This record gives sequence, structure tokens and C-alpha cells, in this order.
Amino acid sequence: MTVTYEDVTGAARRIAGHALRTPVLEVSPGLFLKLEQLQHAGSFKARGAFNRILSAGELPPAGVIAASGGNHGLAVAHAARALGVRAEIFVPEVTSPVKVAGLRALGAEIRQAGALYAQAAEAAAKRAAETGALAVHAYDQPEVVAGQGTLGLELTGQVPGLDTILVAVGGGGLVAGVTVGSGALGGGVLGGGVLGDGGLGEGVSVGGGALGEGTAGPRIVAVEPELCPTLHEALRAGEPVQVPVSGVAADALGASRVGGLAYGICSRAAAAGSLASVLVTDEAVVAARRALWERHRVVAEHAGAAAYAALLSGAYTPASGERVAVVVCGANTDPSTLNAE
Amino acid sequence: MTVTYEDVTGAARRIAGHALRTPVLEVSPGLFLKLEQLQHAGSFKARGAFNRILSAGELPPAGVIAASGGNHGLAVAHAARALGVRAEIFVPEVTSPVKVAGLRALGAEIRQAGALYAQAAEAAAKRAAETGALAVHAYDQPEVVAGQGTLGLELTGQVPGLDTILVAVGGGGLVAGVTVGSGALGGGVLGGGVLGDGGLGEGVSVGGGALGEGTAGPRIVAVEPELCPTLHEALRAGEPVQVPVSGVAADALGASRVGGLAYGICSRAAAAGSLASVLVTDEAVVAARRALWERHRVVAEHAGAAAYAALLSGAYTPASGERVAVVVCGANTDPSTLNAE
Ligand SMILES: Cc1ncc(COP(=O)(O)O)c(C=O)c1O
Ligand SMILES: Cc1ncc(COP(=O)(O)O)c(C=O)c1O
Repeated sequence: MTVTYEDVTGAARRIAGHALRTPVLEVSPGLFLKLEQLQHAGSFKARGAFNRILSAGELPPAGVIAASGGNHGLAVAHAARALGVRAEIFVPEVTSPVKVAGLRALGAEIRQAGALYAQAAEAAAKRAAETGALAVHAYDQPEVVAGQGTLGLELTGQVPGLDTILVAVGGGGLVAGVTVGSGALGGGVLGGGVLGDGGLGEGVSVGGGALGEGTAGPRIVAVEPELCPTLHEALRAGEPVQVPVSGVAADALGASRVGGLAYGICSRAAAAGSLASVLVTDEAVVAARRALWERHRVVAEHAGAAAYAALLSGAYTPASGERVAVVVCGANTDPSTLNAE
Repeated sequence: MTVTYEDVTGAARRIAGHALRTPVLEVSPGLFLKLEQLQHAGSFKARGAFNRILSAGELPPAGVIAASGGNHGLAVAHAARALGVRAEIFVPEVTSPVKVAGLRALGAEIRQAGALYAQAAEAAAKRAAETGALAVHAYDQPEVVAGQGTLGLELTGQVPGLDTILVAVGGGGLVAGVTVGSGALGGGVLGGGVLGDGGLGEGVSVGGGALGEGTAGPRIVAVEPELCPTLHEALRAGEPVQVPVSGVAADALGASRVGGLAYGICSRAAAAGSLASVLVTDEAVVAARRALWERHRVVAEHAGAAAYAALLSGAYTPASGERVAVVVCGANTDPSTLNAE
């Protein structure tokens, strides 16, 4: 099972008028911020949620169901309300009261189930089997990956001649979708930037350490915090593996194993030299989040600043003249924490 | 003395590559946010500053000089640094240490002069006469108005078929520039929205209370806080008048008299039915600022949220199908105050 470019173009048609076309800001010549934190419900997750729900044809009376104490839950609740469908969201008991209130404000029914995400997910799956509700996975469903991929399609339409896209990775739905939707799997042009110490030099060939070998789309730089190296470790191991996750962005990037769909797409792209995996420190993420605000008046959550951190920290250094887009993918955060860290 | 459409297109050519082309976000069908708070130095003021400095030909060794404890000072300091020119900024003693530090970080030389803005402005003018430095006025110079006007030109290029632009007013440089640059003085299409209680129904004809009488560009809705009604009172009086100013947005919108250039342009546009002046309460500004963050993940300062407040409060109600742009014009604010009011 995989996701094709046609799946992404189909998703784009389906969600047009539901998800926002988020703008791009060229902050210096050749450096573009894709302002996806301005998406409905504050993250790219609305794209996948709309595509999954709108792909289902007639919806069951029980509506839709998801497990998430974070951006995925907010996005599913938003999409369900916009489409006039019931939403039941299973959240782990650790979820902050602010987030629960946010979900409730979007009209979702909240079930607190289990101490951690895995238990909430289990409870949601059980409940979906009972009620017949449509389950919307956070990253490992084709319609979800195709929906996230519309960001890549949109971005390459907005920035002609784009060479490189930096994008954060949790369970991998976003990076996989963007890899397909941007044409990187057709993909990757000649030449390219230089990977810093976080670069994946050993386990997987990425065209000799740097990126790019004579293909058509932009190259993808998949960025993870060192403390959430889910895709990085999977690419080294040659298969999805369980990894311990923690750190400032773990609430959004803390999937402990990359999705099977995402692994398939990303490992193919890495083998073709069109994708590289880099790691950033939590300190770099915090600094990038602050720089996005101070330099560019963009508020992002930690996960939303991870891709920019790869650039600022030198984990990825573009070549001269390279046209680079950084996906700012979420802003569900308390802005008062910007000055506090 | 006035500013023409050709002055604005000339300014656009001059500042291209210096000021950013800020993006537009369509938040619902026909409602566009012009995200000018993402401009260099956090407000539209960079446009006028660059145009004024770049219009001067060879610059005097003393560089540039401005009086401002706020966005104008930051913009002049930014432009001067970017162009490798000395900048001397006169700030009133009331200026917050944070703003002074911000100016210093941009490399400007700071002079604290006088208790209030008027005294700082006087000191700056005196000093410019002594040193020969190029004075950059906050709103009442043709090159500054033409520079701000590039926002209107850019916006009409980004949003085809735009009917209405809502824009905040202080000394009037922005609204005057946008009126010229958007073609509203050629301007204003048939039909249009409805003005609420803040609408200028008495003193000045705006086509019978509502806007628009058979001309070509978009209409302009000039928005001011009730506590800073500088343009509103000038249009009623038939000339610029001194008004008391206070309230949440007075740090940016608190010019106590509208500029002569701006008055000339705005009164002509109002007489032609292409501009209306509306007022909003401070409460509406605070609510709009919070809504920009909560609904759209856009951080604005109070002045930057004033135009949006006209829409949310009903001071201006668009007609059905009307294509409306709201200029979000500044974000030099502490984001931690967003939740605090
Ligand atoms: C803001 C943000 N960025 C990135 C991600 C990672 O997305 P994915 O799980 O599809 O890799 C998430 C997931 O929740 C997120 O919320
Ligand atoms: C954020 C912001 N908005 C609006 C204005 C008003 O601009 P003008 O004085 O050109 O009317 C200012 C002026 O400082 C400002 O800083």
C-alpha cells in the first residue's frame, strides 16, 4: 500500500474550500517559509482530516473518531464540525486541561482513556469497532498521508523552481505526503546542500552524503529532534523500529515508531537520493522558535519550528543559490511561553 | 503637493528586494488578511522608510534621522542598517526600555529628548538642520506616503477583484498611500457594504452613508479607535484639527493631527465616495487582537488589529459577496500580553 501523486491531486480537489491555501513568505532571497501554522485549527493536520472524512462517502451515524490529545484531535474536531459530523476524541489522561477545553470548544465529545497515548488509541479503536464510526488515524492511513501531501503540491505551485523542502517528522504522515505531493519521488534536482553532523551518512545512501541525483522534483530534508529520532532510526535499521521519545517537541513529534506507509515512501526517496534525514537538538528547536518570532513575527509551537532549526543550526546548509522552503507546520502553543524559555 | 499612482509604482520598483512582499491569507471565502505585520521590523513602516532613503540619491555623511519611540523608528533603523547608512533616532523619554533596546539592537544611535513625542520631533528637526542628515518623517512626506502606498498596489495585485480595503489610521500615511496605490482614487466600484454607528454619516458625503459610486478601484474604509479619531474629526471639520488621543493603540495610532498630505488625499477620496471613516472602541480592538490569534494564529499589536475590529464589531459590514481585505499592519508587541487582557 502506498500513496501516489494522483492520490494527492485528488485530495487537493477534495479539500479545496475546506482547508486553507496557506501563504508563503520569502524572508530573504531564495528562503521561503510555508506558513502552514495559519491552517484551520493551527496545524497542517486539517488537510489529512478533511481528506479522510471527505473520502468516506456517506458517513456512519456515529460520525468520526480519533485518538489524540493534540493537533490531530483539534484538526479532526474542526473538520467534523465544519462538515456537520459528530466527532469523538479519545485523549490520554495526561492531556492538559487547556487542550481538552480547546477540543470541547470545537464541539467534540471527549473521552479520557488510559494514562498514555497508546491506551487512548486502543480505546478509540475498540469504540470505533462498536459504533461503526469512521476512524481517522494521526498519520498511517493513505487518505491522511495524501491529505498532508496537498501541502507539498500547493507549495511547489507557489514557489517555482524550488530545490529543497525542510519538514518535521513525527509519525511521518506529513513528510511522506510532502515527498509524494511535491514530486520529490519523481524527484530531486542535481546538486544541492550540505548536511551537518546530524546528517544520515552511514545507514542509507543519500547520494554520497549530500542530496540529489538528476531527478525532477525538490529534495526533502526530514527533520527530527535528537530526542524523537523515529524516522532516522528506522532508515538506519532498514525498517520501522520502536524508539524512546522525549523533549520539547514530543507532544507533536513523539510518535515512538514511524508509520508503515511513511517508512515505505521515505525509504524509497532516501534510496533515490531525494530525501535526507537530519537531527536537531532541543536547544536548536527552542532557538529557532524564538527566532521565528523575533525575526519574522511568526509564532510556532516547538514542532513547528523544528524544520527551521535545521537551517539555523547548520544541520542542513543550503548551497549558494539554492531555493529552500521551510514548513512551519503548527502554532498550537501559548504565545506567552515565547519569551520564557 | 500630493502623491500620484505613478509615485507609488516608482516606489514599488525602488523598494523591491528591500521591503518584503508580504503574503495574503484568505481566511473565509472573500475575506483576505494582508499579513503586513510580517514585514521587516514588524510593520508596514519599512516601506516608507526604504522609499524615502532610496529616493534621496547620495546620502549625507550624517545619514538619516527620525523621531519615534515606536514602529517608525524601528523601520528607519532597519532600513538604514540594511542600506549601510547611519541612523539617529530621537525618542521621547516615555519610550519603554524594551523599545530602546530594540532600536539599539538594530544599530541606531538613540537620543532621548523631551517628555513627549512632539519635543523629540522638534529636537530631531533641529539636529537634522545642524548635521545635514536626511529626515524621515513618520507620515507626512511624499516619499513616505508613496512607500506605504506600495502595500495597496501589492494587495490589489494579489487579490483580483478586491472591493474593499480596511486600514488603520494614525497620522494617515498608510491610508493615504493605500488609497492612491490601490487605485481607489481612480476608484471605488458600484454597490458596497453598510456602515455601522461609527460611520461618518454627517460631516462628509460618502455616497449616501454607504460606499461606492461607479468608479474603478477598491473602496477604502479608514479605521480609527474612538480615542484616536484624528482623520475622522478632520473630515468632519473640513481640515486637519488637533484632537486628544489616548487608549490601547495610541502608541501607534496616536498622532494628534492628521498629516496634510493624507488629509488632501483622504478628503478627495471621501468626497468621491471611495473612502469612509469609521470608529471602533478599545474593547473591539482588544477583542479583534485576541481573535486574530485564536482563530487565525496571527499575532498583531493593537494598532495592527484595529482594521479587523471594524469588521468584528460591525462598524463595517460587507455586503454579501463583497471581497474584503483587512490590513494587519504591525506586530511589535509582547505576545505574552495576548492572553492577559
Ligand atoms: C505541529 C506538528 N508538526 C509535525 C507533526 C508531525 O506530523 P507526522 O506525525 O505526520 O509526522 C505533528 C504531529 O502531530 C504536528 O502536530
Ligand atoms: C502598526 C501601525 N499601524 C498603523 C499606524 C498608522 O500609520 P499612519 O501614521 O501612517 O497612519 C502605525 C503608525 O505608527 C503603526 O505603527
